Amino acid sequence: MLLESACGNTARYAYTSNTLINATLFSFMLNAVGREVPEEIAGRKYKPYNGPFSFKPTGRRYAPPLKAVFPDESKLLPSIKDAIKKVGLEEGMTISFHHHLRNGDYVVNMVVDTIAKMGIKNIKLAPTALFPVHEKLIEHIKNGVITSIEGSLNGPLGEYVSRHGMKEPVVLRSHGGRARAVRSGELHIDVAFIAASMADEYGNCNGMLGKSAFGAMGFAYADAFHADNVIVITDNLQPYPVTPISIPQIYVDYVVEVDEIGDPAGIQTGTMRITKSPARLNIAKNVVKFLASAGIIKDGFSFQAGAGGTSLAVTKFLHDYMKENGIVGDFVMGGITGYVVDMLHDGTIRKILDGQSFDLKAVESIAKDPDHVEVSHIMFGDPHTCGCVVNRQHACFLGATEVDLNFNVNVNTHSDGLLLHGIGGHQDAAAGSDITVITIPLLRGRVPVIRKEVTTVSTPSHTVDVIVTDRGIAVNPEREDLIEAVKGKMEIVDIEELYKKAINLVGEPKEPKFSDEIVAVVEYRDGTILDVVRKVKE
Amino acid sequence: MLLESACGNTARYAYTSNTLINATLFSFMLNAVGREVPEEIAGRKYKPYNGPFSFKPTGRRYAPPLKAVFPDESKLLPSIKDAIKKVGLEEGMTISFHHHLRNGDYVVNMVVDTIAKMGIKNIKLAPTALFPVHEKLIEHIKNGVITSIEGSLNGPLGEYVSRHGMKEPVVLRSHGGRARAVRSGELHIDVAFIAASMADEYGNCNGMLGKSAFGAMGFAYADAFHADNVIVITDNLQPYPVTPISIPQIYVDYVVEVDEIGDPAGIQTGTMRITKSPARLNIAKNVVKFLASAGIIKDGFSFQAGAGGTSLAVTKFLHDYMKENGIVGDFVMGGITGYVVDMLHDGTIRKILDGQSFDLKAVESIAKDPDHVEVSHIMFGDPHTCGCVVNRQHACFLGATEVDLNFNVNVNTHSDGLLLHGIGGHQDAAAGSDITVITIPLLRGRVPVIRKEVTTVSTPSHTVDVIVTDRGIAVNPEREDLIEAVKGKMEIVDIEELYKKAINLVGEPKEPKFSDEIVAVVEYRDGTILDVVRKVKE
Repeated sequence: MLLESACGNTARYAYTSNTLINATLFSFMLNAVGREVPEEIAGRKYKPYNGPFSFKPTGRRYAPPLKAVFPDESKLLPSIKDAIKKVGLEEGMTISFHHHLRNGDYVVNMVVDTIAKMGIKNIKLAPTALFPVHEKLIEHIKNGVITSIEGSLNGPLGEYVSRHGMKEPVVLRSHGGRARAVRSGELHIDVAFIAASMADEYGNCNGMLGKSAFGAMGFAYADAFHADNVIVITDNLQPYPVTPISIPQIYVDYVVEVDEIGDPAGIQTGTMRITKSPARLNIAKNVVKFLASAGIIKDGFSFQAGAGGTSLAVTKFLHDYMKENGIVGDFVMGGITGYVVDMLHDGTIRKILDGQSFDLKAVESIAKDPDHVEVSHIMFGDPHTCGCVVNRQHACFLGATEVDLNFNVNVNTHSDGLLLHGIGGHQDAAAGSDITVITIPLLRGRVPVIRKEVTTVSTPSHTVDVIVTDRGIAVNPEREDLIEAVKGKMEIVDIEELYKKAINLVGEPKEPKFSDEIVAVVEYRDGTILDVVRKVKE
Repeated sequence: MLLESACGNTARYAYTSNTLINATLFSFMLNAVGREVPEEIAGRKYKPYNGPFSFKPTGRRYAPPLKAVFPDESKLLPSIKDAIKKVGLEEGMTISFHHHLRNGDYVVNMVVDTIAKMGIKNIKLAPTALFPVHEKLIEHIKNGVITSIEGSLNGPLGEYVSRHGMKEPVVLRSHGGRARAVRSGELHIDVAFIAASMADEYGNCNGMLGKSAFGAMGFAYADAFHADNVIVITDNLQPYPVTPISIPQIYVDYVVEVDEIGDPAGIQTGTMRITKSPARLNIAKNVVKFLASAGIIKDGFSFQAGAGGTSLAVTKFLHDYMKENGIVGDFVMGGITGYVVDMLHDGTIRKILDGQSFDLKAVESIAKDPDHVEVSHIMFGDPHTCGCVVNRQHACFLGATEVDLNFNVNVNTHSDGLLLHGIGGHQDAAAGSDITVITIPLLRGRVPVIRKEVTTVSTPSHTVDVIVTDRGIAVNPEREDLIEAVKGKMEIVDIEELYKKAINLVGEPKEPKFSDEIVAVVEYRDGTILDVVRKVKE
């Protein structure tokens, strides 16, 4: 995180507008990461990104309708179809989902299939994220059931959108940014479908207990609090009152029991295993060495580790370092894995703040340990609150598909231009943390990871501080304090040097070919526009 | 609770409008408990009470402003005065407080004294309740600092209002009704002051831990969620992040540390001790006998016990009965005392839902036991949600200052006309529970408790089922099901018989003399108007 305003930095990005030659000039504007971005997309007007802390909101929270459920009224309905009928879902409405079951989720497909069978079309899908398991939604995009998506796309759906586009561009937001959009009404949800591994017939529910337990339910809070209608879908109906209460009954209109909400084995996707690569283990070791050299790791140290094999290794090495040095941290925020749980259980950290549980050890822990606390993604990263958790983080360790010479980071597209990932908490963690460390290999196969400019700006340079690769460490020149702090302790190289090293090995990579059509918008967490993703030319 | 509409019952109340002779007719209307009530009071238009479940809201939740607190900004301020300055409190604004520290609270007086010293006048006070410890506020009413109160008045402040009135009538609401009013914006709060026995400098707080621990913080939720500004006042600042998190940082603008927020010994006021009176113990035994005879006490049985010596005795005897008969209840909602904690700890009930902790044993339990769960007063009793906890209660046991021949209940005024108590959760529990039992002695000293008509209608007859006195039990004739269920098992008498019994002993009581001036409005929980309180003539 850099608190200085982004103003005056635009010169650094003067060369970044080459993809926009054909655009009508008056409708584009240059933002603070040097991207020419449209003023209006699909009827929504945008302000250009102008630095991470340049925008103070003037509006109010979205105000959902008041309800009344009388003592003799039941909320339990026999099927998803009945619930959809009861809430009056119709053409043009928006439905939302959380992604805590990740690639093991059954609920999104179940609900969209039902909507399709009911003959309802032109629905906006507002999931927190979609995974390969949701590939079959492509069929519902083709048949007009889903005409618009605001949410993270991981894998096949992103690739489909990259190649074919949709009626309206997909809106990509960070976790905190999405919570903000829901809370402000910018993303208005007509019906939120909330998968719960335990619920009572009056709607109190959690994800911590039951055969399909997935742990924290952080994504569901913003939706439950602000959707016009809320339907809980569970495969584990228990006597009233179910506790712990993640989402309380007062927000839940209807409850439906189904056979299975998902396969919890699908929570632990590929990115959740610690790396075995010696090069990446070395990256992780260097991250800890850098932070230790800079004097960051001391009592109270608090951090967020992203998913991904290298970030997990960082957690493990940090744990070792803190334990060896008798350092006790205040909290770890996550995306929580068993590696973080280990830190809590041996007293290396005092608290876990958990927005989503990334493996089954974390799921087990959150259900049992009062110091392993569920938090919403409003609390995690919504910038338009009285302060979110990321603001309190000393460091975060995040991956990237690309980093550029200006320290902008791409996590959404690959260098071939395909949209294959969501933003996750990347923007939020980077903005809030005192030090944002990006861990990347210099090369992925024969593709260099450091680029002249990133294909897509997912997280702006102003919030990115240190790039740790297997061939050297670069520090954002704006962070003179950090460069000074590690002087004589760690070798720092210019990012251009890393870039050249890669190019010398594999040559300049081929640029992807894009058409003019915008298929996705990358919003910054505050709702300004950071970048767009264009359709890939076959 | 009676689910039948109140329509058609007005004839029963035809004689109840005698106090309104001098009123201008066109501005009054007759409500469903037969009271003639004004259409407008102090600029606020009212709908007449028309039965407990006759009103479905059409509005939306109040939408507070969005905020932005950046990573380098601190929320900790050195004094209450600084916090008041920062939020920009000025003339005409509304400030709110919770009353979990009850008669041990220091915060209301501290804040209002500070406001007075700062020279700010014409403030609306919106506490959840005030106690004798707040008597000194009378001075601030006289000097124009406080010109209006919406909140429960217990003791001296109520008596002052009864005798002198204020510029605007006081608005009395039930716990659920107040949560509704705050949530709907009907009671708009500019600044909520939240006393916390534990907080971090970023505003995460609870009332469960620390030297001034008071347990559940249920009242604070509606205010924290919907006030335009929130200030946490604590005497126990702890490292970030404080957990359990009752009110999360995202709602808290500023944090102030003071020496002491209160004296927790003041939580346990007079009404929190079990009765030693043989007559009242007998009432309590008869309540349990009645419920047992009616077949209500079986597995899953869930109830709410009000405060007051007799209600506590009911809890104790219920506990004994359930244990002896191997019955396990689902939950107790409260207002929680050590008597309820005992039921949880020996497995007689599965869960406690706690909105306010009434003694130190309850405070200790909520901090430790995951089955003793804090709930907000929105969840407890706000009728304009997707269903509150009272809807799930099989029974509640409540006190009264008066009950009338129509089964209307007064808990606000005494028979001398003085306003001495708030409504508490009385209306909510009565509306939601399958059976509402009122426990009263036939006489208090030489004052009969059953009246031809109550001085003030606090809880409408349509939600009152059984009156258990030391001289007999009366059942609301509308509850034919109950009369049938206990036939041959319990002696039931006509309420008129109980009334006559009392009159024979002590004679007709003297009616209080009122002026026309309305000093307080009794709202029903749904925001309609139930009754008014008039100034007592000296």
